[in-house]
Amino acid sequence: MRFSLAGKPVHIIIGLMSGTSLDGIDAAIVQVRGCGMDAKAELLAFHCIEYEQDLRGRLKALCSNEHSRVADLCVMNAYLGRRFAEAALEAAASAGIALDDIDFISSHGQTVWHQPIVVDENPYFMPSTLQIGDLSVIAKLSGKPVVGDYRPADMAVGGQGAPLTPYADYIFFRHDDIGRIVQNIGGIGNCTILPAGASSDAVTAFDTGPGNMLIDQAVYQLSDGVLHYDRNGEWAAQGRVNEELLAEMLAHPYFRLEPVKTTGREMFGSEYAAKWIAEGLHRQLSAEDIIATFTSLTVRSIACAYREFVFGQHSVSEVIVSGGGAKNLTLMGWLAAELPEQKVMASDEMGMPGDAKEAVAFALLANDFVHGVTNNLPAVTGAASPTVMGKLALP
Amino acid sequence: MRFSLAGKPVHIIIGLMSGTSLDGIDAAIVQVRGCGMDAKAELLAFHCIEYEQDLRGRLKALCSNEHSRVADLCVMNAYLGRRFAEAALEAAASAGIALDDIDFISSHGQTVWHQPIVVDENPYFMPSTLQIGDLSVIAKLSGKPVVGDYRPADMAVGGQGAPLTPYADYIFFRHDDIGRIVQNIGGIGNCTILPAGASSDAVTAFDTGPGNMLIDQAVYQLSDGVLHYDRNGEWAAQGRVNEELLAEMLAHPYFRLEPVKTTGREMFGSEYAAKWIAEGLHRQLSAEDIIATFTSLTVRSIACAYREFVFGQHSVSEVIVSGGGAKNLTLMGWLAAELPEQKVMASDEMGMPGDAKEAVAFALLANDFVHGVTNNLPAVTGAASPTVMGKLALP
Repeated sequence: MRFSLAGKPVHIIIGLMSGTSLDGIDAAIVQVRGCGMDAKAELLAFHCIEYEQDLRGRLKALCSNEHSRVADLCVMNAYLGRRFAEAALEAAASAGIALDDIDFISSHGQTVWHQPIVVDENPYFMPSTLQIGDLSVIAKLSGKPVVGDYRPADMAVGGQGAPLTPYADYIFFRHDDIGRIVQNIGGIGNCTILPAGASSDAVTAFDTGPGNMLIDQAVYQLSDGVLHYDRNGEWAAQGRVNEELLAEMLAHPYFRLEPVKTTGREMFGSEYAAKWIAEGLHRQLSAEDIIATFTSLTVRSIACAYREFVFGQHSVSEVIVSGGGAKNLTLMGWLAAELPEQKVMASDEMGMPGDAKEAVAFALLANDFVHGVTNNLPAVTGAASPTVMGKLALP
Repeated sequence: MRFSLAGKPVHIIIGLMSGTSLDGIDAAIVQVRGCGMDAKAELLAFHCIEYEQDLRGRLKALCSNEHSRVADLCVMNAYLGRRFAEAALEAAASAGIALDDIDFISSHGQTVWHQPIVVDENPYFMPSTLQIGDLSVIAKLSGKPVVGDYRPADMAVGGQGAPLTPYADYIFFRHDDIGRIVQNIGGIGNCTILPAGASSDAVTAFDTGPGNMLIDQAVYQLSDGVLHYDRNGEWAAQGRVNEELLAEMLAHPYFRLEPVKTTGREMFGSEYAAKWIAEGLHRQLSAEDIIATFTSLTVRSIACAYREFVFGQHSVSEVIVSGGGAKNLTLMGWLAAELPEQKVMASDEMGMPGDAKEAVAFALLANDFVHGVTNNLPAVTGAASPTVMGKLALP
């Protein structure tokens, strides 16, 4: 059975991404010509929908082994499908793009659990990942075919199911003469190494550790729930990094683990954050100092990872930062200071809005599914072979 | 975007079903010609794989709001995908059918929660259902395209997402001159009403209540975990129905609810069973009497439902029983006695092995997805419109 739904050379796709930060839904409307590594993507519009606070709380509970309940997961799987459909329709409407011109939707889904490596003696253990936001619900409520839920396919062929955006980083940012690192700083930090002139199987990537996840939780807790993130890094800028606390945090074994490696809320989530916030308060650090220290953890864990695992092997002259972290000016300044030999810049400066990059990447993955071509990067995920990731639901 | 993957007039499909009884996986290898209501299906082989006891216990825990944990759901979603793939390969091998001759696989998945009606004040509530056994895992490990996870699509267009087998009952058992009821007795009992000469939108169906679920749990508990079901109904045959206890059980409001109605483990699961087993023991009933009373509950709830909701409107002369309950001779005998004006027979007598019927039904649903034709019955599920149920994962 040959598979291809691609009926024309150019498709208009809405890519939906909702990250581990649990802050909302990013919707990128993308025009894609061709497929695979040679796809040409143009961002037509970008739209964000913030989750309301009550919903964030409920999603956070679902991501916790202590608080998740199967009935809530079941309901939320359908409910987020509805929200994703609404986000897609809203994105098209606000961009003035007629629904008839949209070919299909791509949805990453909301990760509630991601467990790529063996951590317990469960005899049924398999590397696995769980994203919710039902594809059929999105398809029926939007009236469009939906491709999504990519990660399990890569894991089924031996990969870690993450990171997936390096595939798009390679398509967007590879350069014949310039070695680049593309660093995303979302809830988790992850980097893609693009050596000058590299073929796709020479691309590597790994999660550097916490991105904004830890900072966000500290801001939320230390502002008594008033703030959700450190806007422009203003709070961190007022504090002083506590080197002693930072050193203890940097002793986390994840940072020493050789890439390929991925992590998430399971390792650096609310329990981890709560522990270190309490530790900071116990040492009588001010809120500013705690935020500054956590911001520095993100910066230092990124820079240390480059020095330990990248710079020895590849010449890198540009670091392109995307995700919410690119807007944290304190973080960006400290990262530039840590990397004096590289040019550190925001993805926006390269013509790809950093906010939109992940959503655009998922549009590319759906485009490949529809063409029936492989869309994982085994060199990056550790998969045994290239494979077609995704599932399709019909309207 | 027109959708059809059907490249030839006849497909060979492996249909996989794993029911709410949590007893294992049924695999039917089916040759299907055409699609939709006029599909012609021929069962080529049927194969069952029993879950081992440890796995059953873990799955039962996942179906319980008290015991389910998101990490276990995540792992089990992948693990069952592997088991489903293995079941499909094993079914083909044991039937001597070459894998190359199999076109695709259909998987219902293992239901862990099904919540079609509003029961709490969760502001995010949506009718929803959750089946695990990841489709991508099945596809990658079997090397075949997989269609599955049908129920959410029907619910997204306003249906209850169940029952789905009446669609196949209509295809297999409709008769121009004979009014029939097709009664499945799995974990839950469900019936399809096929009036003589009815069109598909005149088909109705509903869940009658507990099928074997309650009996199985009583047998398990009262045999101290030695037995899993009442083989041939031998245990029930030795007991006497306690009419007083039975009357109290029949007072459950579900039995008086007007169809369309569906139910499951949420209503008649282990907590419900434990309560009534305790009640029986408290009244000093013997194990035999408790099993007999529970068996009678299944029989009487079925017969009462026919009298109350069916016989007034339709002339029915045959009742065709499938599922494990068809093998419970005590149950079958009592049911025949309760329905003196109908011929009560096992589905096997009609050329469709009762065990295999559901798995065959799911093969038909996948066949329709692949042809891009609708495969729900709005008259049965309550959906607002016909729709294409299912999701597709590629090998």
